[in-house]
Amino acid sequence: MLNRNNLRCLLAAAATTVLTLPAMAQNYAQDSATIKKIYDNALTSYESYENLRYLTKNIGARLSGSPQAAAAVEWSRQLMEKMDLDTVYLQEVMVPHWVRGDKEIGRVINSKLVGSADMNILALGGSVGTGGQGLSAEVVEVKSFEELEKLGKKKVKGKIVFFNRPFDNRHLHTGSAYGEAVDQRGGGPIAAAKLGAVAVLVRSMTNDIQDVPHTGSTRYEDGVEKIPAAAISTKHAEQLSRLLKDDPSLKFYMRMTSQTLPDVLSYNVIGEIRGSEKLDEIILVGGHLDSWDVGEGAHDDGTGCMQSIEVLRVFNELGIKPKRTIRAVLFMNEENGLRGGRKYAEVAKAKGEKHVAAIESDAGGFTPRGFGLDGSKEQLQAVLAWKPLLEPYGLHDIAPGYGGADIGPLKGQGSVALIGFKPDSQRYFDYHHTEIDTFEQVNRREMQLGAASMASLAYLISEYGLSGGTAKVQK
Amino acid sequence: MLNRNNLRCLLAAAATTVLTLPAMAQNYAQDSATIKKIYDNALTSYESYENLRYLTKNIGARLSGSPQAAAAVEWSRQLMEKMDLDTVYLQEVMVPHWVRGDKEIGRVINSKLVGSADMNILALGGSVGTGGQGLSAEVVEVKSFEELEKLGKKKVKGKIVFFNRPFDNRHLHTGSAYGEAVDQRGGGPIAAAKLGAVAVLVRSMTNDIQDVPHTGSTRYEDGVEKIPAAAISTKHAEQLSRLLKDDPSLKFYMRMTSQTLPDVLSYNVIGEIRGSEKLDEIILVGGHLDSWDVGEGAHDDGTGCMQSIEVLRVFNELGIKPKRTIRAVLFMNEENGLRGGRKYAEVAKAKGEKHVAAIESDAGGFTPRGFGLDGSKEQLQAVLAWKPLLEPYGLHDIAPGYGGADIGPLKGQGSVALIGFKPDSQRYFDYHHTEIDTFEQVNRREMQLGAASMASLAYLISEYGLSGGTAKVQK
Repeated sequence: MLNRNNLRCLLAAAATTVLTLPAMAQNYAQDSATIKKIYDNALTSYESYENLRYLTKNIGARLSGSPQAAAAVEWSRQLMEKMDLDTVYLQEVMVPHWVRGDKEIGRVINSKLVGSADMNILALGGSVGTGGQGLSAEVVEVKSFEELEKLGKKKVKGKIVFFNRPFDNRHLHTGSAYGEAVDQRGGGPIAAAKLGAVAVLVRSMTNDIQDVPHTGSTRYEDGVEKIPAAAISTKHAEQLSRLLKDDPSLKFYMRMTSQTLPDVLSYNVIGEIRGSEKLDEIILVGGHLDSWDVGEGAHDDGTGCMQSIEVLRVFNELGIKPKRTIRAVLFMNEENGLRGGRKYAEVAKAKGEKHVAAIESDAGGFTPRGFGLDGSKEQLQAVLAWKPLLEPYGLHDIAPGYGGADIGPLKGQGSVALIGFKPDSQRYFDYHHTEIDTFEQVNRREMQLGAASMASLAYLISEYGLSGGTAKVQK
Repeated sequence: MLNRNNLRCLLAAAATTVLTLPAMAQNYAQDSATIKKIYDNALTSYESYENLRYLTKNIGARLSGSPQAAAAVEWSRQLMEKMDLDTVYLQEVMVPHWVRGDKEIGRVINSKLVGSADMNILALGGSVGTGGQGLSAEVVEVKSFEELEKLGKKKVKGKIVFFNRPFDNRHLHTGSAYGEAVDQRGGGPIAAAKLGAVAVLVRSMTNDIQDVPHTGSTRYEDGVEKIPAAAISTKHAEQLSRLLKDDPSLKFYMRMTSQTLPDVLSYNVIGEIRGSEKLDEIILVGGHLDSWDVGEGAHDDGTGCMQSIEVLRVFNELGIKPKRTIRAVLFMNEENGLRGGRKYAEVAKAKGEKHVAAIESDAGGFTPRGFGLDGSKEQLQAVLAWKPLLEPYGLHDIAPGYGGADIGPLKGQGSVALIGFKPDSQRYFDYHHTEIDTFEQVNRREMQLGAASMASLAYLISEYGLSGGTAKVQK
C-alpha cells in the first residue's frame, strides 16, 4: 500500500507548511519490524496487567500523604528493582496531606415536594469541612460565573452556590467538555465565598448521568474565606435543579469532616535504561502514582504508571538497546498539588539534565488514538514523519496538543517536546475521580496497546531524536 | 487544515491506483455541516440508549424461535411505527428453534491430581444433548484439525475431543484472531465424530482468560453422527490442559439437555424513509435482532439494531430528506442459521429491488474506527473520497473488508456495496456470546458515535450514490 510517492504525499498532507521533508526513520523496514515486535510482546504479556491488579486491588486508592501512597512508592520501587534496569531511585518531594474524614452527608431538607432526600455528594479535594454539625442553607443554582456575579452578594450571601453547568456532549473528545466545565470545580469556592456563600456544590465532571459523584481538586485564595465544597452526582444535580425550580426555598444539609494535615514526605519513583550512544539525552515516559482516595485509581492513573514501567520491560525483554536514555517516572501528587511534577523539573534543571521528550499517559488505559505534541514545528514534523510506522496501529491522531500535567513544569527546559499519549476518550469521564475507577474497568489489550504505543514512539525518538533535519525518506 | 492540494493528496494516497478523482461530495462545506449536525444530535440524545436498555433489560436474550425473540420483533416494530417513517413492515421467515435445556454440567472426574473439579461449560448452539444421564469419557486435547487427523480413530474413538487452540493475541484486530480460531467451534463436532469421538469441548472464543464460557453455532453433517459439543471457559480450558499433561487418563463428565425443536415463524423487522429523488435506490442499515440465549445480546447485536433505527431517527429529527431510500433492517436469526439474511436477499431479488449499499453493524457498540467495504474499486474510491469528511470523527480505517453476515446474501445483486461498520475491536470478544454481554457494558457515547458514523455514511451515499465518476473536488 505504501510506496515512496504516497509516503511523501502523506507527509506533505500532514504538515502542509513543510518545505523540506522532516527526519524520517532511516530504516523503515527495520523500524517497522521492531515496532511489530514491541506490539507482539505487549499484546501477549500479562505482567503489566497483573501489576495493575496488585496496585489497584492490594494497595488501592493512594492519595498523596496516605499510607497507601507510601505503599505504592515502595511497591513500584521494588518492582523496578527486580527489572534489571540501569538505575532505580526515589526523588523526595513534600506533598499535601488532605483527608476526607467521615463519609459525606448531603440531603435536601424541608422541600415542599419531597420532604427530605439524600443526595450523593463527595468533598472536593482540599476542601475544608463543615464542622461536625454540618450546615444547612438555601441553594442558589448557577450555570456560570457570570450568572453568579449578576446575582450579587444580596442573593448569594448565606447560601450554598450550586454550579450546575453540564458537559457539552457535542464534543467528540470528552477532554474538551471537561476543559470547559472544570472551572466550576476549581474556581467555584473562591467566587462563591467572595459573595458571602457558605458552601458550594458542583455538578460532577462527567458526560454521563450517574449516581456516583466525582471528586477533584478545588482551590482557595488567601484573604477569601474557605468554604466547604462538594461534588454532587449528575443524577442528583439534575434532581436538585428540578426541585429548585418549583421550590427555590428548599434547604440543603451537608456534612463533611475533611481537613488538611501537615505536609508529608513522599517520592517520585524513577527507573531508567541508559542510552547506548547518547546517555545524556533523556526520553521520559510517565504517569502519576497518586490517585484520589475513592475507587482504585485504575484509569487515573494506575494504567499510566504501569504502561511506563511496561515500556522498560518491553525494551529489556526484546533486547532493544536504546541509543538515548529511556526513563520511567511515576510522579507523586498530580491530583492535588503537582508537587512531584514540579520537583522533578526543578531537580532536572539543577542537574542540567537534557530531556529530548517527555511522554505522559494520564488519560486512561483505553485504545490508543495518537499523541498530542506541545513543542516546536520541527518536533511535530519529526513525529509526523513516523506516521506511516504508527498508523497501522491505530495511531492516526498526531497533532499539536497538550502534553500532560506532570511533565508540564519541564516546559522550556532546553528543547524538550511534551507529548501527551491520547487514548480513546469516550469512557474516561465515566470513571474519573470516582469509586468506580476500578481494575475491572480496564481491558488488558487496550492498556497494553497504550504501552506499546508509548514504547514505539520512545523507540523512534531514541533512535533518531526529535531535532528534525533533512534525512531522506527510505523504505 | 485541509486545502485542495492536500485533499487531492489524501485521495491519491488512499487510492493509489486511481487516475481520475473519484466522486467527491460536491458541496464540502454543506456536507461537513450536515455531518456535524448528525453527530451533535446523536451525541446529545439518550433515546436510542434507552431503547437499548429496554431491549436488553425488559426483553433480554432473544434466541431465534424464543418468546423473547417474538417480543423483540413486536417491540421494535412498534418502536418504528411511532417514528413517522414512510413504511414499517415485517418480513416472514421460518427460523430454527434450538433450546438449551437445563444448565450444563461439566466436571473433571477421577483426576489423580484434583479428584473432581467443576468446569464452566456452555452447549454450543445447535448441539444435541448428552441425554439426561450425561456422558463421561477420557479427553484428548488437540490444537488443530491436522493434529486430530494424525491421532486417528484409534486414539480418538470413545473420547471427548478438546479443541484448545487459543486466540493469537498478536492480532491488532480481535476479529482476525476469532477468524483463525472459530473453525474449531464450527467444524469440531464433525471432524471429531468422523473419528469416533463421543463429544467435543471447544476452548471459548475470546482473547481474555475468563470464567465465562462463550457459546456460538456449531455444525453437523448428514451421515456423520451428531455428538454433543460445548464451549469451555478459557480459564478452565487452561486448567484442563494442565491437568491432562500430568494425568491423561482423567475423565470428563458432561451433561447437556439441549435440543432442536421444529422451526418457528419469525420476522425481519423493516422500516424506511423513502428517497426524495431516487426512491428505488436503497441504502440499507442493519443489525440482527436475535441474540444468543445467555446474557442480554447487548453488543451482539442490540447496539447494531438500535443504531440502525437511530439513523432513521436522526434523519427525521434533523429534517434530512435523503435523495435515496434509507431502510433499517433488523434481521432475525443471524446467530444460528442466517435465515433472516437469506430471506431478505431472496425477497429483494424477487421484487427486483436495487440496493446501492448495505451497511451492517454487528461488531459491537464501541468507538468507531471506520468501514470495511466489500465491493468494486470504484465504490471503494467513492467512499475514500469522503475521508476528509469522516476522519474528523475518528473514521480513519476505510478499506476493503468484510461487510457482514446478514447482508452477505445480497452480494452480487446488482452492484450493491456491502459495508461493515468497524468499531474498535479490543473488547468485543470479552463479551461475545456470553452471559456478560449486558447493557452495562455499553457506553452511550460509543454507541451513539457508531450510529452517527452509519448515518453520515448513509447520508453521503444517499446524496451522491456510489457509482464513482469524475465529479470535481470542491471545497
